[in-house]
Amino acid sequence: MALPGDGNPIDAGVPAPQVPTKQKAAIYDRPGTVSTKVVELDIPEPGPGQVLINLTHSGVCHSDYGVMSGTWKALPLPVQPGQVGGHEGVGRVVKLGPGTETSGVKLGDRVGIKWISSACGTCEPCQAGAEGLCFTQQVSGYFTPGTFQQYALGPANYVTPIPDGLPSDEAAPMLCAGVTVYSALKRSNARPGHWVVISGAGGGLGHLAVQLASRGMGFRVIGIDHGSKEELVKASGAEHFVDITKFPAGDKGAAISAHVKSLAGGLGAHAVIVCTASNAAYAQALPLLRFNGTLVCVGLPENEPQAIATAFPTNLIANHITITGSAVGSRREAIETLEFAARGIIKAHFRTEKMEALTGVFEEIHNGTLQGRVVLDLS
Amino acid sequence: MALPGDGNPIDAGVPAPQVPTKQKAAIYDRPGTVSTKVVELDIPEPGPGQVLINLTHSGVCHSDYGVMSGTWKALPLPVQPGQVGGHEGVGRVVKLGPGTETSGVKLGDRVGIKWISSACGTCEPCQAGAEGLCFTQQVSGYFTPGTFQQYALGPANYVTPIPDGLPSDEAAPMLCAGVTVYSALKRSNARPGHWVVISGAGGGLGHLAVQLASRGMGFRVIGIDHGSKEELVKASGAEHFVDITKFPAGDKGAAISAHVKSLAGGLGAHAVIVCTASNAAYAQALPLLRFNGTLVCVGLPENEPQAIATAFPTNLIANHITITGSAVGSRREAIETLEFAARGIIKAHFRTEKMEALTGVFEEIHNGTLQGRVVLDLS
Amino acid sequence: MALPGDGNPIDAGVPAPQVPTKQKAAIYDRPGTVSTKVVELDIPEPGPGQVLINLTHSGVCHSDYGVMSGTWKALPLPVQPGQVGGHEGVGRVVKLGPGTETSGVKLGDRVGIKWISSACGTCEPCQAGAEGLCFTQQVSGYFTPGTFQQYALGPANYVTPIPDGLPSDEAAPMLCAGVTVYSALKRSNARPGHWVVISGAGGGLGHLAVQLASRGMGFRVIGIDHGSKEELVKASGAEHFVDITKFPAGDKGAAISAHVKSLAGGLGAHAVIVCTASNAAYAQALPLLRFNGTLVCVGLPENEPQAIATAFPTNLIANHITITGSAVGSRREAIETLEFAARGIIKAHFRTEKMEALTGVFEEIHNGTLQGRVVLDLS
Amino acid sequence: MALPGDGNPIDAGVPAPQVPTKQKAAIYDRPGTVSTKVVELDIPEPGPGQVLINLTHSGVCHSDYGVMSGTWKALPLPVQPGQVGGHEGVGRVVKLGPGTETSGVKLGDRVGIKWISSACGTCEPCQAGAEGLCFTQQVSGYFTPGTFQQYALGPANYVTPIPDGLPSDEAAPMLCAGVTVYSALKRSNARPGHWVVISGAGGGLGHLAVQLASRGMGFRVIGIDHGSKEELVKASGAEHFVDITKFPAGDKGAAISAHVKSLAGGLGAHAVIVCTASNAAYAQALPLLRFNGTLVCVGLPENEPQAIATAFPTNLIANHITITGSAVGSRREAIETLEFAARGIIKAHFRTEKMEALTGVFEEIHNGTLQGRVVLDLS
Repeated sequence: MALPGDGNPIDAGVPAPQVPTKQKAAIYDRPGTVSTKVVELDIPEPGPGQVLINLTHSGVCHSDYGVMSGTWKALPLPVQPGQVGGHEGVGRVVKLGPGTETSGVKLGDRVGIKWISSACGTCEPCQAGAEGLCFTQQVSGYFTPGTFQQYALGPANYVTPIPDGLPSDEAAPMLCAGVTVYSALKRSNARPGHWVVISGAGGGLGHLAVQLASRGMGFRVIGIDHGSKEELVKASGAEHFVDITKFPAGDKGAAISAHVKSLAGGLGAHAVIVCTASNAAYAQALPLLRFNGTLVCVGLPENEPQAIATAFPTNLIANHITITGSAVGSRREAIETLEFAARGIIKAHFRTEKMEALTGVFEEIHNGTLQGRVVLDLS
Repeated sequence: MALPGDGNPIDAGVPAPQVPTKQKAAIYDRPGTVSTKVVELDIPEPGPGQVLINLTHSGVCHSDYGVMSGTWKALPLPVQPGQVGGHEGVGRVVKLGPGTETSGVKLGDRVGIKWISSACGTCEPCQAGAEGLCFTQQVSGYFTPGTFQQYALGPANYVTPIPDGLPSDEAAPMLCAGVTVYSALKRSNARPGHWVVISGAGGGLGHLAVQLASRGMGFRVIGIDHGSKEELVKASGAEHFVDITKFPAGDKGAAISAHVKSLAGGLGAHAVIVCTASNAAYAQALPLLRFNGTLVCVGLPENEPQAIATAFPTNLIANHITITGSAVGSRREAIETLEFAARGIIKAHFRTEKMEALTGVFEEIHNGTLQGRVVLDLS
Repeated sequence: MALPGDGNPIDAGVPAPQVPTKQKAAIYDRPGTVSTKVVELDIPEPGPGQVLINLTHSGVCHSDYGVMSGTWKALPLPVQPGQVGGHEGVGRVVKLGPGTETSGVKLGDRVGIKWISSACGTCEPCQAGAEGLCFTQQVSGYFTPGTFQQYALGPANYVTPIPDGLPSDEAAPMLCAGVTVYSALKRSNARPGHWVVISGAGGGLGHLAVQLASRGMGFRVIGIDHGSKEELVKASGAEHFVDITKFPAGDKGAAISAHVKSLAGGLGAHAVIVCTASNAAYAQALPLLRFNGTLVCVGLPENEPQAIATAFPTNLIANHITITGSAVGSRREAIETLEFAARGIIKAHFRTEKMEALTGVFEEIHNGTLQGRVVLDLS
Repeated sequence: MALPGDGNPIDAGVPAPQVPTKQKAAIYDRPGTVSTKVVELDIPEPGPGQVLINLTHSGVCHSDYGVMSGTWKALPLPVQPGQVGGHEGVGRVVKLGPGTETSGVKLGDRVGIKWISSACGTCEPCQAGAEGLCFTQQVSGYFTPGTFQQYALGPANYVTPIPDGLPSDEAAPMLCAGVTVYSALKRSNARPGHWVVISGAGGGLGHLAVQLASRGMGFRVIGIDHGSKEELVKASGAEHFVDITKFPAGDKGAAISAHVKSLAGGLGAHAVIVCTASNAAYAQALPLLRFNGTLVCVGLPENEPQAIATAFPTNLIANHITITGSAVGSRREAIETLEFAARGIIKAHFRTEKMEALTGVFEEIHNGTLQGRVVLDLS
């Protein structure tokens, strides 16, 4: 029997079910290539401070592809064969480790695992609420076993409670993509009524940013992307769409800037959020801003890092322009993102697949043919 | 008879003296070269909203040199022959124009003229307190007659009151250099107890930034400059001095970064204020910062604008780094800067010269031999 | 021919019409009573910095009643016989005074006059953007001739531009009621997704606060008022309505607090905005807040001032509670409020009357029978 | 042999010493009276996440007296006989419990125990950095064994590292009194150069607030207290001292307000921090503020709670006044406070006593004769 708003049949408050000893998991069997393999693994025991979670769903994220294929240059080390990937997992707590009695997490609770699967809570970034910069963070699906399996461990003080009424498959993509754009929008310093440009507005991050900015946070959104994304971007809540392919190659940057300024009260946007990995998008972003405006960098360029080509001190000084970067959000921001999702304000476009289809999904990512996101049904 | 803390013999509250019809002024007689000429000019009448000020002192600023010589590429137009330069002027109000009765400015008040000599007060930047970005701002000593003369006009609502007890010659350099660094330090988001690096710490802006940061605002200061500036920088309040010439040419940036981080609690500075015009200083600045740190651009590169060479999105994202720029401060910031000066917290190193010596002063700037700043005695 | 979104037939850019010498105005003929009289007055000439506005509409505000009747104890002096009241006026500029050429205001511009009709722009509150606290402010319709007349003067730098597409009658109530609640919501420190209680949610200020908070700023709104206001409050965008009459008299405060906390995530509201003048509403407000929450005082008690009965230091300390007050907003906030109105996010409930009906309108206010607001058609 | 800056002979990095099985402790043997008794207790074993600390020093705080004597009405329950009191403890880690390997705390580290001895780290206040409001906080020396003993347990993730160079006896009072005033000063929103009034400036909290505000944070301090405290307050860094006994009884509040305003630029203070428990101090505080000013409540009235007698909505609205409360600070604020102490900016006045003298110390507190603070030498 399916609960309303939940793909997971375990009722909260009910005694823990029998936990089996073996489970199914998808591993990276040949890192550096596009390949995963479904294997049988032992189900681990929760250590001090940990809980065991029976996962029912896991999102598949572009960064999982980067970890597996080794194309993501920002990673310090290549992933190892046998690694279980994944970092957007949702399921129910089925076993409590020692010392978790006072954590507030109970058997049967529906919780989520995020990109940062564990943070120390005591280093200076953690104390500043910037746990994504924790000095001893662990990343789910990279060296820590991830969410492409049926049972995973998580620290009781770092798993995220899933609000009632939000289906688990819808919750999964919120745990990385959703919280990333929410945190970035908060760092933009935009206020309700302000003009916010989302660059890469039709992408996996971008369309969520458009939804949250326009429907959740009171911003007026201008989405920039290729023309094929116009319908999605407008349906997500953008007031204007700018088709980047319609500007002359010669002076594209100046033409886009002039057009965006005309849309944004004649002065330009209060904030630009770059959700793509394109160096061109970064170079075009600063001229879109009005005085006192803020560029928030979110998209991680996959290739050689290049400086933002228009980051002249003279320009930043003359117009009081700010550039900042935003990594994954905090535990609190994850909770707040899920509240927006539970209210229906933000919802990813996704289709559901079984674990066995994962290699095929990564091939779609590799070939650039994946539309929207994929959530694995792990049951 | 000299008043205490004042080089100007007109008492406040006393009836306005007879204002003569002619005055002495120093003009740019051959813009594009290093040349000024002292001439006799008519004393103007204050128009609606204006007051006439009998100037006793004017600072000489590096940007006056840039305007005169045409070496400052940031300026949109070359200055015209006959222009009276200068933008750090102090004197007493001797005549009130129509409509100034309710402005609060009275005959005999000691007031100052700043780089922005007039701002509209109603455009969006003005309403945001960013009058330095006013859409119709007028710049003293560029197209508006400046402070290298004995009598100048200023808007009653934009001249800055000089606090009692602060000598006029000491006040002059505060009106541009002082307020510029104060505004930049405020934009750094540093809090008392934070580590702040001043790059170019021994320069005209830098040494004032060191004083204000360390003695006025509770920051812990690391000054960076050439070794010859060590004594000045430490005397200004820096806790540490970093001699930029003592690092190996090959990997200077990394070596300086490692050293500064070791001084700043192992993690790096909370803020870096670049007070020089050097592209190298800008490139070295970002690696000095700790997570959540802020680079404030103040020094305007005189030559071709270059992007900040280390402004990679990846770095900004991974460490939540912010880059921002700060132009001249607001009216309010000018008042607050003068309060710090009146309390003895901030004081420029300067010598006093007569108007006739101005060309020689600019030659010292041109040759790079000027030590400290110069204030003209206009009496 | 009526322009779209405009009740005023003068086209922008067209030469100024002939301005007559006489006009109609409604004066307070017997201050201290409920009485106004329509008289003929000379049309004034704009002085330095002023513009003459041909008003087409003026809102009637509860504080106009307070000024006229003398029931508003907060006013330092009684109003004088012959005073023209009103402070929510909209019309077109028909004459420019000396010194307004560079103000940006042009003949034919549609502009508004606010409660603060003139602020100096240079005192410390003005420089802080708190012009409502200007030391030499002038209040429209109190000692300065107000907006219950066909032609009024205003400073070019302080009248508010009305955005195209917003009808003048809809704009009028935004200039006081709208901007007041916008400014208060900003001072609440609430962020999108936060719970905000509007106390007095069905009143003239309250229903605008509900609209702006829920539809414009991304807050989740709980409206509190008497049961008769439920429909209006919900139609304005409140997620929950709390009928204050349904709680037991004995322990009303605790019961309301428990109920609001249950609606607001179990912890209470992030902010409460008290839009009524009731001391009971103030006493009940603090227990509605969650830790770190903020009470914003907006409603001015008309009678003897009483301290907020629950403002115990112990409570503020134990829960990090903040109490603050918000007066009328700034010029910038007026512009932003009108942008929300032009987008259809905020709209007052009002009916239109002629100037001759003004005494009757004040009688309705006096008797407590006025539903919504009234806007005078001055043409 | 004493280490420099350290009363504790255990070197960092050295293997853990033999930990004995018994220790000396001071207990509240007769709660509700002024009485303590030194007894022998078992030394506990650290549980999961805990460390065992060999305490060398503990501050004695006024709130310990309140807990013991039952005079502090804010406490929900009376303390039990046999309770070990104290909450400002410093010592070295001598044993690590399970699961603390990755906490960053090592054997031999010098650490401190605070008023909040343990916070969950995951509730909403904890995630907001307001751990003093943690829903499951434990308070040292109330129901949790405190720091009036030689060995105490603390969570590895919540004990505070003591910086090198700061003697342990000087560190102890920083862990409660110091961090409390630091957190309050931060919540005041004052900026460097602002006027801050410390009410109760000569008290245990007040004199630390004066030091930190004036020497550490760049504020200009006006101290208010009885005349006998003038020397201490001025020596602590206050620019002005106001002797509260020198104003006429009839209209004391207005007279003090006028005097403070004349000292603070004519407009009043930007912030007032009330560090005493006096209702009169609270009532006098608001009239000292300039527009936009903030009152921070710190002193907890011991008796019946009374509303702040001048907290009229009308006043808060007309002057944009803010009132807020500040409880104990966060882990991060404790670290920052100790940095100020290590730099010599803040130092409590204290004398050292042995554990056996504790009852006598509490009698001094009871009789109001204690000068400064007391630190117990526990060795």
